[in-house]
Amino acid sequence: MFNDNKEIIKPKHVIFKDEFYLESGRILSPVKVTYETYGELNSKRDNAILICHALSGSAHAAGYNSAKDQKPGWWDALIGPGKPFDTNKFFIICSNILGSCFGTTGPSSINPATGKPYGISFPVVTIKDMVKLQNKLLSYLNINSLVAVSGGSLGGMQALCWAVSFPEKIKSIIPIATSGRITPMAIAFNSVGRFAIMNDPFWNNGDYYDSAIPRVGLSIARMIGHITYLSDSAFQKKFDRRYATYEGIYDFFGYFEVENYLRYNGYKFADYFDANSYLYIIKAMDIFDLSYGYGSFEEAVKRITSPALFITFTSDFLFPAYQTEELVSILKKYNKNVFWENIESDYGHDAFLLEHEEQSKIIKRFLDSIY
Amino acid sequence: MFNDNKEIIKPKHVIFKDEFYLESGRILSPVKVTYETYGELNSKRDNAILICHALSGSAHAAGYNSAKDQKPGWWDALIGPGKPFDTNKFFIICSNILGSCFGTTGPSSINPATGKPYGISFPVVTIKDMVKLQNKLLSYLNINSLVAVSGGSLGGMQALCWAVSFPEKIKSIIPIATSGRITPMAIAFNSVGRFAIMNDPFWNNGDYYDSAIPRVGLSIARMIGHITYLSDSAFQKKFDRRYATYEGIYDFFGYFEVENYLRYNGYKFADYFDANSYLYIIKAMDIFDLSYGYGSFEEAVKRITSPALFITFTSDFLFPAYQTEELVSILKKYNKNVFWENIESDYGHDAFLLEHEEQSKIIKRFLDSIY
Repeated sequence: MFNDNKEIIKPKHVIFKDEFYLESGRILSPVKVTYETYGELNSKRDNAILICHALSGSAHAAGYNSAKDQKPGWWDALIGPGKPFDTNKFFIICSNILGSCFGTTGPSSINPATGKPYGISFPVVTIKDMVKLQNKLLSYLNINSLVAVSGGSLGGMQALCWAVSFPEKIKSIIPIATSGRITPMAIAFNSVGRFAIMNDPFWNNGDYYDSAIPRVGLSIARMIGHITYLSDSAFQKKFDRRYATYEGIYDFFGYFEVENYLRYNGYKFADYFDANSYLYIIKAMDIFDLSYGYGSFEEAVKRITSPALFITFTSDFLFPAYQTEELVSILKKYNKNVFWENIESDYGHDAFLLEHEEQSKIIKRFLDSIY
Repeated sequence: MFNDNKEIIKPKHVIFKDEFYLESGRILSPVKVTYETYGELNSKRDNAILICHALSGSAHAAGYNSAKDQKPGWWDALIGPGKPFDTNKFFIICSNILGSCFGTTGPSSINPATGKPYGISFPVVTIKDMVKLQNKLLSYLNINSLVAVSGGSLGGMQALCWAVSFPEKIKSIIPIATSGRITPMAIAFNSVGRFAIMNDPFWNNGDYYDSAIPRVGLSIARMIGHITYLSDSAFQKKFDRRYATYEGIYDFFGYFEVENYLRYNGYKFADYFDANSYLYIIKAMDIFDLSYGYGSFEEAVKRITSPALFITFTSDFLFPAYQTEELVSILKKYNKNVFWENIESDYGHDAFLLEHEEQSKIIKRFLDSIY
């Protein structure tokens, strides 16, 4: 299906008109979900895999949405015929998360009560809310069990939340470069991004949809994000200390290549991502604690009944491997079926989007044992 | 001298009226230097030690400037009678660096040509310029040789620059938590701070001395700095995931203790530090490369003739220990007298301001062997 002729994948949409209860007690209605699917659902409806995207991702995980697209979906390297998430065998689903800005209801959606975008009147949503909405989508699709739930970073947090919230519905999880609760240092990095956005005069208390966007604030947040997605050695390899301008090092406005890269990517991001969505999603990330509602972290983790494959990357300092080690040791203590691969990589946190070969081998082997 | 009666140290000042030539070829005149001294210069004038401060530091390294001061100078734990930089034995000098905002000429100083603050008409200054100005201060004080030059972070960069630029004048160096050229990742963090300040509408192209300051931009820069000065484990120990507000996790404006800490310190910094000075100093930091002018890094490092004591900290990811390892291995290759202690610490880069006991022992032992 993913050949040079670029077979086109069109996103699908569903609008749930009933009341959707959030963890906070607040209610959203209606709720729209945008999703994509790859491969075919079999007649037993038991070959589905749910892929969960990260902070800035979307439902567009694989293939091309249009013949003009330069790049395929964000995990195209892992999703397709013969790839680990094999579309000859599995029915792959990826939906845009609740609170995001790529087709699923979020703060930029119209609030039916006012006819205007929610802005910060949008309720705080949690990863459990995102997962509950994915579960609602599965019910709508008449799918009662999943071969696997997988994703990296925030996507992996969703996979963990799935395994703890709906253990009976899933046959396996593959959480990658993730955590059951992010570190205080990761919260710190998010905090600065939040501060930058909320103090951008154009943020205007979240009400900017009819005017200029908080471009500088969101760019700063993204620049910080970018640094934390890489690693010291990735920066060395990618940029070293190369200087980018011709005016020389004594020019006040001169800059290094790495600075150029960050600025370019910061601005680019601000042009397509909604600042309020960014705030809501990092909030969901910060407040996510797998133990919430289960008494303790161990009590939560031991609810996981399905086989689990964890993948981490040695140079990831945002979601450090020791957090996965803790999850794995709890699962082992309770004799769960758990595998963990700590891949040697210089790519840092972003490795889950880049280390295709190693991940492919490991995931393929694991999924072959599941289905 | 540093007893409970808080003997008061008063900063001293000198104004050099001749032309001060910068590495860039530009000229500054006049140049004012603010400095403090602790202990007594002996009759042979050969017991002086130069202490170099870091990015946000000042000449106030030890003691109290006023009886009302709550806290002593930034390295008071190491400077004083019986302390490693022993004021019973040594004459300690610390001067505010060129480009800073605590009494030495910088972008907030009055440009004699216009009668207004320089702002960004101030020339880009380098660490070598800072060192040259310290050397000028020593000449003014009639001091021709130093027992040691020491400092952490940017202060350590100055110590290294001293050893390479004026090897004949110094008997030893003690560079701590530092580097001969910072990593691309450290440049990246500085880049975001720079972007935040220069895109704060109140920065106004550096011309804000008669109006509101770019408080948000400078706060963001400082918040990012703070994260990089700590470590993952320091964040765990200091804040863990403790939530700071009573409205609960579903409150959009709720925040964690770590966030509260960063905001408080960001704003506090913006209230006393000049944003342009911040820009000029991080520029000096970014463009500093010990090899500059000497053909190669190795050629530069082998110019160091004096004994050198390097100190690093295991959890410092901003100035990683491997950079010091490289310096040490070059010095060893040329049979130089070099010592290196990599102190096990959770404090991150800030450890040079916090790990007093270990540092004291090591520095004392080293200085006893020098003088």
